[in-house]
Amino acid sequence: MARMNGKSVLLSMAAWVVLTSSAQAELDDRSIIDLTYPFDEHTIYWPHNKPFAWEQTSWGPSSGGYWYASGQFCTAEHGGTHLDAPIHFAKDGLTLDEIPLQKLIGPAVVIDVSEAAKQDRDYRMTVADIQGWEKAYGRIPDGAIVLMRTGWGQFWPDRKAYLGSQTPDDAATLHFPGFSKEAAVYLTSGRRIDGIGIDTASMDHGPSRDFIVHQIVNGANLYGLENLANLDQLPQKGATLILLPMKIKGGSGGPVRVIALLPQEIKR
Amino acid sequence: MARMNGKSVLLSMAAWVVLTSSAQAELDDRSIIDLTYPFDEHTIYWPHNKPFAWEQTSWGPSSGGYWYASGQFCTAEHGGTHLDAPIHFAKDGLTLDEIPLQKLIGPAVVIDVSEAAKQDRDYRMTVADIQGWEKAYGRIPDGAIVLMRTGWGQFWPDRKAYLGSQTPDDAATLHFPGFSKEAAVYLTSGRRIDGIGIDTASMDHGPSRDFIVHQIVNGANLYGLENLANLDQLPQKGATLILLPMKIKGGSGGPVRVIALLPQEIKR
Ligand SMILES: [Zn+2]
Ligand SMILES: [Zn+2]
Repeated sequence: MARMNGKSVLLSMAAWVVLTSSAQAELDDRSIIDLTYPFDEHTIYWPHNKPFAWEQTSWGPSSGGYWYASGQFCTAEHGGTHLDAPIHFAKDGLTLDEIPLQKLIGPAVVIDVSEAAKQDRDYRMTVADIQGWEKAYGRIPDGAIVLMRTGWGQFWPDRKAYLGSQTPDDAATLHFPGFSKEAAVYLTSGRRIDGIGIDTASMDHGPSRDFIVHQIVNGANLYGLENLANLDQLPQKGATLILLPMKIKGGSGGPVRVIALLPQEIKR
Repeated sequence: MARMNGKSVLLSMAAWVVLTSSAQAELDDRSIIDLTYPFDEHTIYWPHNKPFAWEQTSWGPSSGGYWYASGQFCTAEHGGTHLDAPIHFAKDGLTLDEIPLQKLIGPAVVIDVSEAAKQDRDYRMTVADIQGWEKAYGRIPDGAIVLMRTGWGQFWPDRKAYLGSQTPDDAATLHFPGFSKEAAVYLTSGRRIDGIGIDTASMDHGPSRDFIVHQIVNGANLYGLENLANLDQLPQKGATLILLPMKIKGGSGGPVRVIALLPQEIKR
């Protein structure tokens, strides 16, 4: 049986649950963080995508006398907190349902560029930013999910502020931070990560026209997470991410629920 | 800080990842099982609900020269592998987005009634069935998710066979197994579980008219999982379930991705 070194790292990180408490650990609302925005009428979608459309089909006492509530909804794959499957920008990439489960659990590497993004709405995370993290916390472990923290959660769900445009349905006018091409190359070629994520609407910064980060990340058969919530509540190292997307057969992406298990010592 | 005894149990069960391998464990495709059916045109929905409707909105080379694939979909909340939030059958119950995250991770208690269901398509799991499990494996732990294994996965995605009717859009003609009222009372009153699940279309058996199991389980502010896949691949005790539903604000239920971590010693 082949060893997966990355996952050995993952699980020793996840191991706070037993290592810190002699095989008894507490899983409560202070040890798990939801990195997912709700889907509702305020959910932010990309220019020209329709808003989340949910409706009640039954909602009240039924003829049988019991309460009965049920609904239905329509959505674009790429809105709100969602996952970009490799096929989104790579013809032969994995579809949403094909991503191996073990790639959906891993250590969260959180790289904070919020100060730089405050100075420059269109900031792109550099290789130096990544190397700064590695200097402080060690080499990015195999199987990691690398999260870029920009502070953009402060703008959600104000669509104009979040997308950085007074005309947010005009994709040519957007302004928000993203990864740089060089950072994407560094992470996908130099490290053995499972995916990347960001707390803005796109892994490419607002002004991008070629979506080069999408091309590189999806081209490496890796996934991206966009519109992540609450990244400010994560430590820069030590959390374990679990992200389970809706299993859409052949999907290019879709809604994903993303949670983080915190290391025991830094519970909120 | 309040102790959550159930979750102490959970995590010592999940602890195979470190306990069995001196802080190095392997997370590979043999240690995780997907209990989720894909959403596609074959996905089984309840009578009168529309099939899963997915379409490509872009799928090919873009004007910018790069590959670009994107889609959108519509679905009822209660189709395919999905979660019934408490509000589904309880006016004041939790909505889908309100279920605490710590209730979405827990030990899987798998009660196998497939032999009885072979004899009787409308079989209802009894209190004796549950007590048989407890005699073999011990008291159902706090925080457990109790899964009823009927063997119905063999019929998926043949809608007539799975729903047990030649007229599967007539809800009065359905035949498949479910929980009994007494079993629902036993689990929700006598044990401190997080939810229940089943590998058929409903926690109530096909002939039910009052959906009494839904009323009891949702009435106890607990959730149900329906149309679970691959329950035959789970041990009766020892697996840890992680189930993350799509975060639909105010939803009565919705698509959920359900995975199980296997105990190290029984990897496939
Ligand atoms: Zn996307
Ligand atoms: Zn349901």
